[in-house]
Amino acid sequence: MTTTNKIIECVPNFSEGRDLKKIEKIVEPFRGKEGVKLLDYQNDEDHNRSVVTVVGEPEALKDAIIHSMGEAIEAIDMNSHQGQHPRMGAIDVVPFIPVKNISVEEAVEISKSTAKEAAEKYNLPIFLYEQSASRPGRQNLATVRKGQFEAMAEKLAQPEWKPDFGPQQVHPTAGVTAMGARMPLVAYNVNLDTNQLEIADSIAKKVRHISGGLRYCKGIGIELKDRGIVQVSMNMTDYTKTALYRVFELIRIEARRHGVNVVGSEVIGLVPMEALIDSAAYYLGLEDFSMEQVLEYRIYE
Amino acid sequence: MTTTNKIIECVPNFSEGRDLKKIEKIVEPFRGKEGVKLLDYQNDEDHNRSVVTVVGEPEALKDAIIHSMGEAIEAIDMNSHQGQHPRMGAIDVVPFIPVKNISVEEAVEISKSTAKEAAEKYNLPIFLYEQSASRPGRQNLATVRKGQFEAMAEKLAQPEWKPDFGPQQVHPTAGVTAMGARMPLVAYNVNLDTNQLEIADSIAKKVRHISGGLRYCKGIGIELKDRGIVQVSMNMTDYTKTALYRVFELIRIEARRHGVNVVGSEVIGLVPMEALIDSAAYYLGLEDFSMEQVLEYRIYE
Repeated sequence: MTTTNKIIECVPNFSEGRDLKKIEKIVEPFRGKEGVKLLDYQNDEDHNRSVVTVVGEPEALKDAIIHSMGEAIEAIDMNSHQGQHPRMGAIDVVPFIPVKNISVEEAVEISKSTAKEAAEKYNLPIFLYEQSASRPGRQNLATVRKGQFEAMAEKLAQPEWKPDFGPQQVHPTAGVTAMGARMPLVAYNVNLDTNQLEIADSIAKKVRHISGGLRYCKGIGIELKDRGIVQVSMNMTDYTKTALYRVFELIRIEARRHGVNVVGSEVIGLVPMEALIDSAAYYLGLEDFSMEQVLEYRIYE
Repeated sequence: MTTTNKIIECVPNFSEGRDLKKIEKIVEPFRGKEGVKLLDYQNDEDHNRSVVTVVGEPEALKDAIIHSMGEAIEAIDMNSHQGQHPRMGAIDVVPFIPVKNISVEEAVEISKSTAKEAAEKYNLPIFLYEQSASRPGRQNLATVRKGQFEAMAEKLAQPEWKPDFGPQQVHPTAGVTAMGARMPLVAYNVNLDTNQLEIADSIAKKVRHISGGLRYCKGIGIELKDRGIVQVSMNMTDYTKTALYRVFELIRIEARRHGVNVVGSEVIGLVPMEALIDSAAYYLGLEDFSMEQVLEYRIYE
């Protein structure tokens, strides 16, 4: 009831997924802080990487992030880092996601001021990416990270890869960090009653943006071997513009031509309430509906 | 971010809908209080009644309610009250609704302790109703209120109508109050592409509890004259047990026999997010979905 108005989410990825003691030290700055709430953190041993999900008021969250980055720089030496996941730094990537009463533009500003302060404090080179990118070629994280930690010294030496903040020089142990604002990402999968992977692949190609489908949908076909079925596995990168129900119905339509049925779908991890309420509003044909009518939206506004 | 765990909603109905100055005095105790948030208040001149929607932490909300009741007792004299809506007291009815981390049982306890304190403080007879009722015959508000203010003196004189708290005597100006816990009520209407009221009536009879339909659904047919269509207008009294999508689909099925289509539906006023998310989960066939995956649920838990 004493909430502030603005809430932003941050999902920093750290290049340590095995040493639980180190992970605890990195996560500690998110605990018990006024204005900050740690929602989740998961470590992946194969990837040797941890993903933290934290929400908070902008200033409080910024302070906690910078504090946590300091712990990660102390704990992680990229020169000895091994793991399957592409990475270029100890604090590999720090996305900021608007949640409540914050526009994407404000999230961009928060990412920039966090990047500036952290770069100066730790003498760390930081690239702005996604919505915060200073040029189109830096929007895509994969492009920024290409070459990974091992090739970063060479990359930063090129004038076009001068970091947005910090020195034009790799941090000797912490490498390079990407920071930026993006929309919430919803991991959404649709299951088909067939074991033919090529059907899921074919449908994925039709619904995903890159090959002609919906603008904010990425997708591939995968097998669920234990269930003997296949799945169109997707990342919905802006549910406010590419709705969940739309891709669900499109997959159903495409499945028909293969004589296949959709058996269900699943959301992996966290999903903003609006992404689901929007689908309810579609199926129930809600007239003149507004998020202002949602009790929880009003309680915490 | 500094929210407490427990949130309860209260929707007190006051028998004053015309004098805005008096209404402001009654509402004032809900403003600017730590742990209390005034969501809405609406006055109806024909009913001469105001409905306030407020949420809060149990203790803070209880204090604010009792304070507001005092203002209403000062402002309202039932002896001169005129209005279309049935009423028996200045603070006619005070429902408590569990919202977050509160069970119905806890809401019952809160309603009882509020009733006890208010009855003693103001020498006001209070009946517990709905989930808080002390006997089955007092669950239904209409039964408790039957006879209205004018007949209350006679009613309270009967042993079976001894109030649960306060004197066995009508308050000379404030009458009698009903207080109790109930589930959130969702006002949900489904629109049909016909102007035949008897079709909406016939469908309402099939889907509502009283005449053989769904347990937590009340409903009638009404005309939307300006649109030239009719509507099944409903109160869903426990959306956790009678889901919105279920009544929507049932109305669609019943409409078919009349050769009529459902053109849409509408939610009036506030709706808990879970009522809509549950419908999204049904239509998207979500597997293994939990409210724990909803970002806002986690942020404010």
